Amino acid sequence: MTIVLKLGGSVVTEKDVPETVDEDRLASLAAAVAGVDESLVIVHGGGSFGHHHAAKYDVSVSEGTADPVAAREIHDAMIRLNQAVVGSLAAQNVPALPVQPLSMCARDGNGALTLEHSAIERQLSEGFVPVLHGDVIAHEGEGVSVLSGDELVVRLANQLAAERVGVCSSVPGVLDETGTVIDRIDDGDGLEHVLGESDATDVSGGMAGKVAALLELDVPASIFAPTAIEAFLGGETPGTTVGGGQAGP
Amino acid sequence: MTIVLKLGGSVVTEKDVPETVDEDRLASLAAAVAGVDESLVIVHGGGSFGHHHAAKYDVSVSEGTADPVAAREIHDAMIRLNQAVVGSLAAQNVPALPVQPLSMCARDGNGALTLEHSAIERQLSEGFVPVLHGDVIAHEGEGVSVLSGDELVVRLANQLAAERVGVCSSVPGVLDETGTVIDRIDDGDGLEHVLGESDATDVSGGMAGKVAALLELDVPASIFAPTAIEAFLGGETPGTTVGGGQAGP
Repeated sequence: MTIVLKLGGSVVTEKDVPETVDEDRLASLAAAVAGVDESLVIVHGGGSFGHHHAAKYDVSVSEGTADPVAAREIHDAMIRLNQAVVGSLAAQNVPALPVQPLSMCARDGNGALTLEHSAIERQLSEGFVPVLHGDVIAHEGEGVSVLSGDELVVRLANQLAAERVGVCSSVPGVLDETGTVIDRIDDGDGLEHVLGESDATDVSGGMAGKVAALLELDVPASIFAPTAIEAFLGGETPGTTVGGGQAGP
Repeated sequence: MTIVLKLGGSVVTEKDVPETVDEDRLASLAAAVAGVDESLVIVHGGGSFGHHHAAKYDVSVSEGTADPVAAREIHDAMIRLNQAVVGSLAAQNVPALPVQPLSMCARDGNGALTLEHSAIERQLSEGFVPVLHGDVIAHEGEGVSVLSGDELVVRLANQLAAERVGVCSSVPGVLDETGTVIDRIDDGDGLEHVLGESDATDVSGGMAGKVAALLELDVPASIFAPTAIEAFLGGETPGTTVGGGQAGP
């Protein structure tokens, strides 16, 4: 079985403080991950590393930059965060290896994503845990644009035929108007009013963007808080279950 | 026109001093590269960054390691060198972007290499200069093994249909018994006696390994010293010309 696990940028960083890792939380997530026997791919978001730099240069999923200084600044910030995440996993004896989307992803002129996953597949079959991240990637006619962690999760899960997808977020799931976790979301209809903005700079669209992306998955995804990561990794479906063609009767 | 340029590990580092970049030489090579208008892919070797770590763990092109600590130690050393090379190119306004073989290359159980180059191709068409390096890559049944800069140069050049290949080395070309540069090598026959060992730890096979790898190219490669880089980039064929099916009458 293959699991794709997203660690939200707001989970692994202090999202409002530039380039600050939440070391304690990262260590506790890494400890939970260390107990997993299945094939595992980890994706982390940008948090206070990528988003500030991307916003500075007005770079998003669709609007790119041809400026190599901007491209490197955003990418390098994400590499620093990736090194912290891989380091934290390594400290818990997780056989983590860093994988950079800039090296194996690209967009065409319509924004369609190509993701080449042979290296990841081989790392998994050799027992390693590839650790990817939101990044900038080359985009036809745009220079580079942003690849969000959520888009990455969806494409990886679909291409690797992952059985389970988990999104560890700063909230316990998608919340309704009363602040209650919505158990299941099968499509985006009528949910606009509950899908508010993210609480800090987020070039990838906040919760609305996250749910829209996850609805493209072949299997359901669970959105849950860090306290529920062991439940998720143990086979439960904490928080909100999104998409995967699991619509009720 | 696409050019693949290798900067030897012994050229960009002090090969006998662990993890020491030759900053002055790197700056002068970067200045030469800054004048190039053609599509350019740069590959650098390991020098005193990768080779010492690979030798420590007995990891080579064919003998791998399943130890994630070893894999990360070798890879991280190469990332440090890659950051120095990209930084030096950036300082000369070369639109360099880092590309990691660990993210887009793998070997099967026979050692056959898969290299996925869509991201590189898009970076080139957007005007960037991808900068790759010798690395560890996942290898079926071996964990990870070494991908040498020379093997990378050959595969990149063939897959990208590069028109020109240059290998900037610490020597002015392949030398014969009298120390004279051999003008052309069309095959490996009878050359064993002139293809001596490299002058420092080199897990990728020294000059003999380099020539053997370059003989797999679809186009000829030039092996030349740093002083000849402007001549090469200006269209000349300094040093030794290897392979490319250009055998004489």
